[in-house]
Amino acid sequence: MNAPIYLDYNATTPVDPQVADAIEPYLRQHFGNPSSSHVYGRNAHQAVDRAREQVARLIGAQADEIIFTGCATEANNLAIRGTARALRDKGRHLITSAVEHPAVEQPFQRLSEDGWEVTIIPVDSYGRVDPAKLSTALRDDTVLVSIMHANNEVGTIQPVEEISAMTRARGIALHTDAAQSMAKIPVSVDDLGVDLLTLAGHKFYATKGVGALYVRRDTPLLPVLVGASHEAGLRPGTENVPAIVGLGEAARIAYEREPEKIQELRLLRDQLHNRLAEAIPGMQLNGHPEQRLPNTLNFSFPGVNGRDLLAHAANEVAASVGSACHEDDDTVSGVLGAMGIEVDRARGAVRLTLGMASTELEIERASEALISAWQTITS
Amino acid sequence: MNAPIYLDYNATTPVDPQVADAIEPYLRQHFGNPSSSHVYGRNAHQAVDRAREQVARLIGAQADEIIFTGCATEANNLAIRGTARALRDKGRHLITSAVEHPAVEQPFQRLSEDGWEVTIIPVDSYGRVDPAKLSTALRDDTVLVSIMHANNEVGTIQPVEEISAMTRARGIALHTDAAQSMAKIPVSVDDLGVDLLTLAGHKFYATKGVGALYVRRDTPLLPVLVGASHEAGLRPGTENVPAIVGLGEAARIAYEREPEKIQELRLLRDQLHNRLAEAIPGMQLNGHPEQRLPNTLNFSFPGVNGRDLLAHAANEVAASVGSACHEDDDTVSGVLGAMGIEVDRARGAVRLTLGMASTELEIERASEALISAWQTITS
Repeated sequence: MNAPIYLDYNATTPVDPQVADAIEPYLRQHFGNPSSSHVYGRNAHQAVDRAREQVARLIGAQADEIIFTGCATEANNLAIRGTARALRDKGRHLITSAVEHPAVEQPFQRLSEDGWEVTIIPVDSYGRVDPAKLSTALRDDTVLVSIMHANNEVGTIQPVEEISAMTRARGIALHTDAAQSMAKIPVSVDDLGVDLLTLAGHKFYATKGVGALYVRRDTPLLPVLVGASHEAGLRPGTENVPAIVGLGEAARIAYEREPEKIQELRLLRDQLHNRLAEAIPGMQLNGHPEQRLPNTLNFSFPGVNGRDLLAHAANEVAASVGSACHEDDDTVSGVLGAMGIEVDRARGAVRLTLGMASTELEIERASEALISAWQTITS
Repeated sequence: MNAPIYLDYNATTPVDPQVADAIEPYLRQHFGNPSSSHVYGRNAHQAVDRAREQVARLIGAQADEIIFTGCATEANNLAIRGTARALRDKGRHLITSAVEHPAVEQPFQRLSEDGWEVTIIPVDSYGRVDPAKLSTALRDDTVLVSIMHANNEVGTIQPVEEISAMTRARGIALHTDAAQSMAKIPVSVDDLGVDLLTLAGHKFYATKGVGALYVRRDTPLLPVLVGASHEAGLRPGTENVPAIVGLGEAARIAYEREPEKIQELRLLRDQLHNRLAEAIPGMQLNGHPEQRLPNTLNFSFPGVNGRDLLAHAANEVAASVGSACHEDDDTVSGVLGAMGIEVDRARGAVRLTLGMASTELEIERASEALISAWQTITS
């Protein structure tokens, strides 16, 4: 039996073979601790420095603005709780959105338990934050705003540039979780106007177990995990050299990727959209029709439960009903709920996400399998 | 030029080739997110489960008592701050020792800033905690004791069994940082009597970027990093599957290693000791003569600065003056200071740590190089 067609790139991507090749010498030969002052350590340190430059270049930052972490969740904790702690004497009001990943939502929840006040900005039916609503929520004691760059479940891109115009004018720190947007749409820290930005290796063809936080120079920040003085004192723990080297290589590949490749991905995604919509009357797109990641298609199949549909098609298609983080959970997606999508439609939602290895043949076969599964269940 | 002889295994170990082989398929083929419910995810989930059993077996634990983390520092933060938070309504007194790694020392420092009271137990001239002193420090509001299993700089093994007899009798949680002892001396959570135990992949031939925390069932613990519900709700973030698979394989290898191999390592270490002591009058051992890791030799060279000595021998020997984490720092080791070692002797200290790949020829060549460097500087 062939492996099912992988349409779950937003959950995780395969490791690019060039990334695996870049990692391998750091797995098999170069093993030094970057903190050691001998030649083994210096080699490792140089490899980490090179990766730092590669990641910085991808997002238009300086190398010394990149902090490597063990995952994007850790980077989000550092960004949000580290800023809140650093600015706790300045103010205790924080703002985020109703459609953030748990890795952002939960740090705010923790801060809320610990005495901070958190305002959660609602989204429209496309999953977008209205900058005007955010504007009215800003207060004199607001110290941090965190709004994701693009949503993991529906792909909707947030108006981060408009938000940063407001936060910058008021001297409020702005964080964005760019785990899903990285290498799918342009991510420039200066164009976005953000002070802190999270990225995740395993969402753009590097490995799991590595993330990074961009920290604009002079942004007040304290570490969340504490220990020795690695990563400018902001993230203790021996650097994960092989994974960091891989992250650098993935950043290099993304930086050098021709924009046409992303356009091809978008066309493939739209082919999948059209095939499904033509065969199944009443399909409904979840997420913004245009302001959306080029690889993401969140569709509600009428009259079925998305989980049942995927179970029927499991031999042919591997996809999910939403964030991989709550796949065990049988409740409907909080993101779709925040968008005001009624329960029946939310139950029918399936997230189909494409990647650089997706092909036209895969899209044909996957759409046939999904259509057939839908017909079987509803007939 | 040949690479210098590596005598810094306490800073980090090379990855065992079998570990690299075990990792490779998870780098190149199996890339699923363990949280995904499709076959890609299930394969990844099974690999993580298998590793969890391998790690548990090495320390005599159950698989569901193992929490994977991004590094030992993170595991220490979770153990110490997670317990303190979980028990904050029970009591706010904590106990640790004066010779802990910064990854333990700093979490206590953070808790101290946040209103907990921390008692730091001194050590004797060998670097050992006196259980009687610890006993008198225990109070009704003591909720956690954390004493390392073996010291990273001098190798001294702490009387954890004696300490656990006291903490268990009083219902106080006991944590030990076993990053340095793992796979060098027997580490059994039941023999030690600990409730929480930290281990680090890159200290026993797995990769950097992965650690684990053993948590005895029913030990109160709250997460430090927060996000989605991975790792029993105690450590959010997509699991670092390749590194976790590698950690499991390293645990398997350590579990199956014949005790004679460790005895050979000890003999090699003692050969190095004897060669240096015979050639250099006035060499002084730092650390306990017997209750010490079999691979660790911390020696003070008379009349020289350890850094200068290693700089002179840098083409032949790669070692350190202490913990890799503060190699940049020119002050003398806090561990040696806590042992009451005078500054001149502490300045002459060099840490020589052997590993499974060390050979008799290496020991001969390294001792010649170190003796020659000492003679050059002091002549």
